[in-house]
Amino acid sequence: MASAALKARIRRPQLLKKLMTAEDTLQFFKPGQYMGWSGFTGVGYPKMIPTALADHVEKNNLQGKLKFNLFVGASTGAETEDRWATLDMIDRRYPHQVGRNIKKGINAGRIRFADKHLSMFPQDLVYGFYTKDKPDNRLLDVVIVEATAITEDGWVVPGASVGATPELLQMADKIIIEVNTRIPSFEGLHDITTCHQPPSRLPYLIMGAEDRIGTVIIRKMQAAVPIDPEKVIAVVESNLPDNTGPNTPADENSRAIANHLIDFLSKEVNQGRLPENLLPLQSGIGNIANAVIGGLAAGPFEDVKVFTEVLQDTFLDFFDSHKLKYASATSIRFSPDGFNRFYDKWAYYREMLVLRSQQVSNSPEIIRRLGCIAMNTPVEFDIYGHGNSTMVCGSSMLNGLGGSADFLRNAKLSIMHTPSTRPTKSDPTGVSCIVPFVSHVDQTEHDLDVYVTEQGLADLRGLCPRERAETIIENCAHPDYKQLLKDYYDKATKVCLAAGRAHEPHMLDKAFKMHTNLLEKGTMKIDGW
Amino acid sequence: MASAALKARIRRPQLLKKLMTAEDTLQFFKPGQYMGWSGFTGVGYPKMIPTALADHVEKNNLQGKLKFNLFVGASTGAETEDRWATLDMIDRRYPHQVGRNIKKGINAGRIRFADKHLSMFPQDLVYGFYTKDKPDNRLLDVVIVEATAITEDGWVVPGASVGATPELLQMADKIIIEVNTRIPSFEGLHDITTCHQPPSRLPYLIMGAEDRIGTVIIRKMQAAVPIDPEKVIAVVESNLPDNTGPNTPADENSRAIANHLIDFLSKEVNQGRLPENLLPLQSGIGNIANAVIGGLAAGPFEDVKVFTEVLQDTFLDFFDSHKLKYASATSIRFSPDGFNRFYDKWAYYREMLVLRSQQVSNSPEIIRRLGCIAMNTPVEFDIYGHGNSTMVCGSSMLNGLGGSADFLRNAKLSIMHTPSTRPTKSDPTGVSCIVPFVSHVDQTEHDLDVYVTEQGLADLRGLCPRERAETIIENCAHPDYKQLLKDYYDKATKVCLAAGRAHEPHMLDKAFKMHTNLLEKGTMKIDGW
Repeated sequence: MASAALKARIRRPQLLKKLMTAEDTLQFFKPGQYMGWSGFTGVGYPKMIPTALADHVEKNNLQGKLKFNLFVGASTGAETEDRWATLDMIDRRYPHQVGRNIKKGINAGRIRFADKHLSMFPQDLVYGFYTKDKPDNRLLDVVIVEATAITEDGWVVPGASVGATPELLQMADKIIIEVNTRIPSFEGLHDITTCHQPPSRLPYLIMGAEDRIGTVIIRKMQAAVPIDPEKVIAVVESNLPDNTGPNTPADENSRAIANHLIDFLSKEVNQGRLPENLLPLQSGIGNIANAVIGGLAAGPFEDVKVFTEVLQDTFLDFFDSHKLKYASATSIRFSPDGFNRFYDKWAYYREMLVLRSQQVSNSPEIIRRLGCIAMNTPVEFDIYGHGNSTMVCGSSMLNGLGGSADFLRNAKLSIMHTPSTRPTKSDPTGVSCIVPFVSHVDQTEHDLDVYVTEQGLADLRGLCPRERAETIIENCAHPDYKQLLKDYYDKATKVCLAAGRAHEPHMLDKAFKMHTNLLEKGTMKIDGW
Repeated sequence: MASAALKARIRRPQLLKKLMTAEDTLQFFKPGQYMGWSGFTGVGYPKMIPTALADHVEKNNLQGKLKFNLFVGASTGAETEDRWATLDMIDRRYPHQVGRNIKKGINAGRIRFADKHLSMFPQDLVYGFYTKDKPDNRLLDVVIVEATAITEDGWVVPGASVGATPELLQMADKIIIEVNTRIPSFEGLHDITTCHQPPSRLPYLIMGAEDRIGTVIIRKMQAAVPIDPEKVIAVVESNLPDNTGPNTPADENSRAIANHLIDFLSKEVNQGRLPENLLPLQSGIGNIANAVIGGLAAGPFEDVKVFTEVLQDTFLDFFDSHKLKYASATSIRFSPDGFNRFYDKWAYYREMLVLRSQQVSNSPEIIRRLGCIAMNTPVEFDIYGHGNSTMVCGSSMLNGLGGSADFLRNAKLSIMHTPSTRPTKSDPTGVSCIVPFVSHVDQTEHDLDVYVTEQGLADLRGLCPRERAETIIENCAHPDYKQLLKDYYDKATKVCLAAGRAHEPHMLDKAFKMHTNLLEKGTMKIDGW
């Protein structure tokens, strides 16, 4: 029954006795189960069984009748969790999501979702916070993980992401492993740690992006996720690739932002506040992040290191430029072309790369110690420097928080970058990404050092709120909105000064006027205050 | 010239040559200087020179003409910085403040102030973020510290607080030391570390509240702050006590809150999510914190440890109950009576106590590793779990952020406690501390686990925003406001569900209606939505 390819991947023969098809595993699933999946940013997630379950629901009209509490380190491919959302198979979904239909389910009040800092989710899971009201026991009923190999001890070698896999497996009552023979074995790329409980937690002794601290299997000197093989109830062969899309290319705005940032970093080096090879970089997802990393591949800094959550395609350019010396992440989310490029030069790239669990890749302890330079994109930010990473007009979930706050709170330099406006259907300039008062606060004014748009960069270090407002409006706002924002600030300052309450001037009755106008009339361009 | 008492405190004789009166030091001060002071929560701050400078300004009508950029770890006694604020001697004041007149100056737009997480301020200072625009050099022009002794090497032994003293001295161009002979030498109580720059930062190898990692003077096996004695331009004898006030006594509300909390912690122990001796506690300042610690002194938990920022008087009861085994803090802010009690049994208490720099006492790394239980008081919190720690009606500075977010972001259990209402002049029930949308966000919904008022406790772990709203309103709101908050939530949910944007239902045009009504009419009790 087991293919030669599969046998080559599973070095613990007893586990081959659990081999079955995805359809065979349907017997293990019941409504209301607490379920964990491997996966992070759409790579390394189980594919066969989620697809079989979705087919089963579709074929038997079980929509809304077979719902699960689903825990995944971050997001998975659209053909799994997003299809599940369409089929009303998700009751709770923690702690992150990206996807059109899952978002729709959340905003319709059908899917119970809450963001959690990605460094904290696995820890809180092990602490029992997510399963405390579970009637029978405190474990996840079933955890499905994708492996690219299984060791002699039955330990799991993940694929292109580690994410929360170690802690999900640590909390599993029963385990199902999808062994993916379509993609190469990633054995040797990971550094795996599991989660101790206080008061017995230990320091993460990582002093540089390349340091490894995890479990080691002596025979192979390579790392995998420890499990109790007795808990494995099924092994399924998978032949499906990670369903990633193409890379988001840089555009004029994102290139302008990248240039502002590289200028700023050069100045910091010149003034002695950064070493010549910078400090470990964290960069978020999207076209600005791609442009920034692409810019660095052609930029002035050598021997750069990266300590981040996710690598995108432009990191391959950065490696190939020989300017990137080492990268640590929890996931590599390449495009299909990027993955081909990566596999073709596997021996070259693997010497410069380690994948860790998200609890470690996003650890405040390590981020602060290394003095990372963090760069992420907000939905909007306000004139005093608060950032909104998740919500449109205060209520509508756009994207999960992810690890943005893990990095922005703890980095040496905390930077957010966004175009100053985003086009809408009815307005080519579109909505302003700078507002008087963000409609949702994910990053506080106490956390950010720098905001940058295609218009320019605002260095907020050491500034009081009123100075911040003047700097942000002057340097970052789009010309279409600059006067409007200035008028709000001037009027709020006048009103608040008169009342002796002008530390951070606001008119609370008008603070969201641009947002409510957008909701009612489709534009943030209001007549005045 | 030097008294016998002073000679006994200064073990480096050369420094006695710098001895002068506070008035003699006036020559060293010029408008616009960047100045650092020791001190934290009104203890361990310099007293003689700030008073002499204030007298000088008052006598010579120099108000507004001798202004400084003032950096202190946290707050100092009212006779110093608050008097300075009255005399318009403060241009910038970072990163914390408490005091009637300093607040007034900030809200009048006269004092430039910005909150920073107290764990981050000293680090950002050493990184040069606060002095980057300083014209001559990147150091603080003059740093004045209070010492209770000076070692053979000229190193500084602080008093009742460490705060940011090590880093302020590290960044000092010139140093003035006030040696306080009125209070006992605190030698041996401190654990002192200075700040390395990335990429050379090291782990804080603290695995328990009692661990010491700092500099050690071999001869005495005791810790002090290293300085270059050549930088010392003056030594002044001080005979003034720390100007603390009486302890805030517990009242009916704070005792009710303490009881809810102790019940909750007992349940967590029973369900296996906390050890029997709990995990290291952090407790903020004020009467609720006092009631909680007082309640624990009479409570069911033994061998408890504390890893916190500040100790108040009730910690002495906790020690005396033999239930508190060890406490780590950056400051002991006792009342005058509390200090007498502490000094009387110095040999007993000092074995159970260490004072560290605020960068260590508030370190995310250590707080997360130890799995602290953090408890702090907000100004207000909202139905979705965001907390406001600093600002009244969005604009008016009340108290600084302090270390609240250092602890609440990283603790194993993050708890905020407040009465459900606060009385105002015009309204005995007063304003509601629970609102639809906090007027300022210092703690995000992603950070908090538990809110508690005298009405009850809301355990938010694992809940989505709508479930949080229902739990908070039901368990925590004051009866006078419960229906009003429920009506907001119900109406917002209806509106947002209809629009498919109901992840966190809000009506942005009405979200601050309770606040604006308070500003306009003196009450939060509105007719409806």
